[in-house]
Amino acid sequence: MAPTALQPTPAAPDTRQRLIEVAVALFTRHSFAGTSLQMIADELGVTKAAVYHYFHTREELLAAVVQPLTDQLQTIIETAEAQRSRSSRAEHMLTGYADLAVRNPALMSVLAGDPGVVDLLRAGEVGGLIDRQIKLLADLEPGPGGMVKAAMVLAGIAGAAGPRLLRLDDDTFRRHLVEGGRRTLGLRAPRNR
Amino acid sequence: MAPTALQPTPAAPDTRQRLIEVAVALFTRHSFAGTSLQMIADELGVTKAAVYHYFHTREELLAAVVQPLTDQLQTIIETAEAQRSRSSRAEHMLTGYADLAVRNPALMSVLAGDPGVVDLLRAGEVGGLIDRQIKLLADLEPGPGGMVKAAMVLAGIAGAAGPRLLRLDDDTFRRHLVEGGRRTLGLRAPRNR
Repeated sequence: MAPTALQPTPAAPDTRQRLIEVAVALFTRHSFAGTSLQMIADELGVTKAAVYHYFHTREELLAAVVQPLTDQLQTIIETAEAQRSRSSRAEHMLTGYADLAVRNPALMSVLAGDPGVVDLLRAGEVGGLIDRQIKLLADLEPGPGGMVKAAMVLAGIAGAAGPRLLRLDDDTFRRHLVEGGRRTLGLRAPRNR
Repeated sequence: MAPTALQPTPAAPDTRQRLIEVAVALFTRHSFAGTSLQMIADELGVTKAAVYHYFHTREELLAAVVQPLTDQLQTIIETAEAQRSRSSRAEHMLTGYADLAVRNPALMSVLAGDPGVVDLLRAGEVGGLIDRQIKLLADLEPGPGGMVKAAMVLAGIAGAAGPRLLRLDDDTFRRHLVEGGRRTLGLRAPRNR
């Protein structure tokens, strides 16, 4: 297809952002391991050299893709850890995570559901974030039971948010995810809400 | 590497089973889309032609990989659907699914967590099984809340069983998964257990 005046050129300032968006779409459809830089170039209608201008490897592109989400996750975890009680820490972690999932369903399923991505993230600094978010939820119930339920809640929210079963509005969807999470963890809803 | 007398030849009767086992391991590590028949041949130390003798496409191999699990899932769903009350139907579905996940953690994470696999399964006859298992759990709570919690429980169990956080024995692990699932769904434990 010949480029027209309406198509962005590889040098356009938003190309990097469009690369990231196309990558998320392809990672969701074909998984991270199943998506090549060539596929991303083809989907965007640019040359592979144009992709290389921004990202030299799939791993570099993945890092750029997950950065906004891990930044937000880090803030949620830090805010939750600063709370006084165990239940308040868990409540902050749960509501923050559900909100993140509702606002970024595709990205969340890449981040939490793709084995290649999970392995890469676990090996890097994000591994520490995963452990901290599990601890914030698992502390409600000492022993292995708390760990299992924390893992269920995090995987359950990410999985339910990914391929949406129903077209619910964000508020309703978030409310049901938080309610399901509270029940799993044995956490009461805070009174002042 | 030259073949030795100890290595199975492509004609060995267990080659098909070993191909399936290697495929599960590679699908778990690299995702379905990221695993080629050549990679499977290399891992097993056979030629690609030997793989072709059993499976012509990755899709054929995937079908053979998930067949035992979907057969078991079908039996669980049918047994659950035959129960009299909504809570008994949900209880059977939940305990059957948790047991399946505990006994097949790697396969379960391929089946439920890999976007390429989920798309393929949804498009085929397994799509009907997914809808039926969700309905069995969702019926406990009318409206969208029941659907969201059912999706959370199924994704949560599959996700928690995949990359195990703790080396729990199967019984303990299953017990916590079922307890977490009951709580999420608002389902009481049956009295006679």
